[in-house]
Amino acid sequence: MKYDRIYNFSAGPSMLPLPVLEEIRDEFLNYRGSGMNVMEMSHRSKVFQTIIDEAEADMRSLMGIPENYKVMFVQGGATLQFAMIPMNLMKNGVADYIVTGGWSAKAFAEAKKFGEINLLATSKDKNYSYIPDVSDLPISEEADYVYICENETIHGTTYQKLPNTKGKVLVSDQSSMFLSKPCNVADYGLIYGGVQKNIGPAGVAIVIMREDLINRELDERIPTYLRFDTFADNGSMYNTPNCWAIYVCGKVFKYLISIGGLEAMNKLNQEKAAILYEFLDNSKMFTGTVVKEDRSLMNVPFVTESKELDAEVVAASKAAGFDNLKGHKSVGGLRASIYNAMPKEGVEALVKFLKDFEANYGK
Amino acid sequence: MKYDRIYNFSAGPSMLPLPVLEEIRDEFLNYRGSGMNVMEMSHRSKVFQTIIDEAEADMRSLMGIPENYKVMFVQGGATLQFAMIPMNLMKNGVADYIVTGGWSAKAFAEAKKFGEINLLATSKDKNYSYIPDVSDLPISEEADYVYICENETIHGTTYQKLPNTKGKVLVSDQSSMFLSKPCNVADYGLIYGGVQKNIGPAGVAIVIMREDLINRELDERIPTYLRFDTFADNGSMYNTPNCWAIYVCGKVFKYLISIGGLEAMNKLNQEKAAILYEFLDNSKMFTGTVVKEDRSLMNVPFVTESKELDAEVVAASKAAGFDNLKGHKSVGGLRASIYNAMPKEGVEALVKFLKDFEANYGK
Repeated sequence: MKYDRIYNFSAGPSMLPLPVLEEIRDEFLNYRGSGMNVMEMSHRSKVFQTIIDEAEADMRSLMGIPENYKVMFVQGGATLQFAMIPMNLMKNGVADYIVTGGWSAKAFAEAKKFGEINLLATSKDKNYSYIPDVSDLPISEEADYVYICENETIHGTTYQKLPNTKGKVLVSDQSSMFLSKPCNVADYGLIYGGVQKNIGPAGVAIVIMREDLINRELDERIPTYLRFDTFADNGSMYNTPNCWAIYVCGKVFKYLISIGGLEAMNKLNQEKAAILYEFLDNSKMFTGTVVKEDRSLMNVPFVTESKELDAEVVAASKAAGFDNLKGHKSVGGLRASIYNAMPKEGVEALVKFLKDFEANYGK
Repeated sequence: MKYDRIYNFSAGPSMLPLPVLEEIRDEFLNYRGSGMNVMEMSHRSKVFQTIIDEAEADMRSLMGIPENYKVMFVQGGATLQFAMIPMNLMKNGVADYIVTGGWSAKAFAEAKKFGEINLLATSKDKNYSYIPDVSDLPISEEADYVYICENETIHGTTYQKLPNTKGKVLVSDQSSMFLSKPCNVADYGLIYGGVQKNIGPAGVAIVIMREDLINRELDERIPTYLRFDTFADNGSMYNTPNCWAIYVCGKVFKYLISIGGLEAMNKLNQEKAAILYEFLDNSKMFTGTVVKEDRSLMNVPFVTESKELDAEVVAASKAAGFDNLKGHKSVGGLRASIYNAMPKEGVEALVKFLKDFEANYGK
């Protein structure tokens, strides 16, 4: 690859589009005649205000975010959202969680600090290898919201259809599928994601929240930084935001628009995933760990028959110039994260490598 | 200046050393043969682990941080620290605050959410233009800590001598003076600072905390992200940290070491500030707003006789290629933030500009 770059299958942080990186490098010492790098700019300056305004506008345009939703840039990652969501959304003190993998399990555990949290459904019985039937669940009458992690990074599952929340507010963690395909924002009360998987550098989560859900009558003991109204009422600049990450995300938004938006991105993601899944379905050595109908387009975990062979493949893949293919310890085996910025050539090269490995093994 | 860069007197984010920016640009598309930019790296990879380990080790070496202190990289800026500090340090539920400007006032207000907070001393009577006598204050018997903001960014004051806490733990916000001069860490229980003024890009605060103060028996309702033990026990990587900011800070640490460490930095900062203060003391048009003995080496607020003239100077300075000299609204006038990365030539150029402005005014 150009600049001796490699195909990086990391689950996050992960690859960024090369044209975006080149553009940033080219304006690194003097951003558009400002005489400074974006990291050096006052966040109260006009030049930075334009950067954050354009980032928000482009995000809105990409996802078709309705006007009655706020877009907020918050530090602390999904981990802080696990607390902020119950702290801000609870009025009755009740919420329903669907647990389909490592990340929704963490969110569920954290939420318990703040109210009565019901486990509405889970796929833990089969190591989170599928999405439960969510068409008719016993939603709590008092539930302030229903929570899902829409794409599980570790376990490699994704929802093909959103749960029937029976009128309750739906909250979704989209971290590992953010902007990977079109999304009907109006189906949700709140969507959020750490950007470090599919969009930009670690250090910011984007929260898209229906305006009427922003509670300004919260318990006064909630820290100022943990209140959504702090962000919504101050354009995400109550205090200094992660300016650099917002700048990079903004570049990625413009790049996505330039290649045709989320429809085009989805088409490419479908193609990339199909190449890998087709190989796995026909391989005698490698097996995908997720039931076919719930497979993620982004995170593809797969295993061989033994841990020893898994380790051998990982080592050989590294030697062949691929990186971060080792699976998460809770699933084992291998995992290829093929986010937006992974080129099709990267997936093709990986499949060729796996095919060759399989063909030559033991010979 | 090289690359048409400008002298940027922003209070933060602010200038970074040019050699650091050049180094980052040069390895932007492929960090040291890794095949990726640092933003694209898994935070669990060896290459990133080395980056964060070196950053911590260099920070420790620069400040001479004793072994019984933890160094943590936390998102959310000083604003989140305003809450985390009382939430984590309170055992008796009592703390004493000294309020000397905008930032300690904010910290004081936030802390009140979490316990009985006493206003130990303040300089509000003279718009925070001095540091009160802190040699013999009525420290509360039950105080879990005494809190100061050691350099007030907006009001331009700094402590020449730390308060006599009568044995209580001292907590200091060093955001706008971080690494500007040698610091005896053992005098403090906790030092923290947002890095976006004197060190690196916005989006991370560094917390230096005496190990025995890390409370692991906290109220269970405190969010996981807001517990210091979450950071201390996981090498700041319980979740994905702001990898990019840590990388840039690490570069700045190495740069500071290369120029001779904090002694050398202090000498240069003293020289830079002396140039500006000497001019102000002799000017008939411009007056520093802080009493001589409590002046900051970093943030230099000054005024003319009228708001109109202030505005005229700011406009002329912008036209002359300086940026961000407008003072904060709570002090008015002008403010020159001359942090570590501001070259001496920048201060000299500013003084020349102000001298010329004064000499030619009304002619």
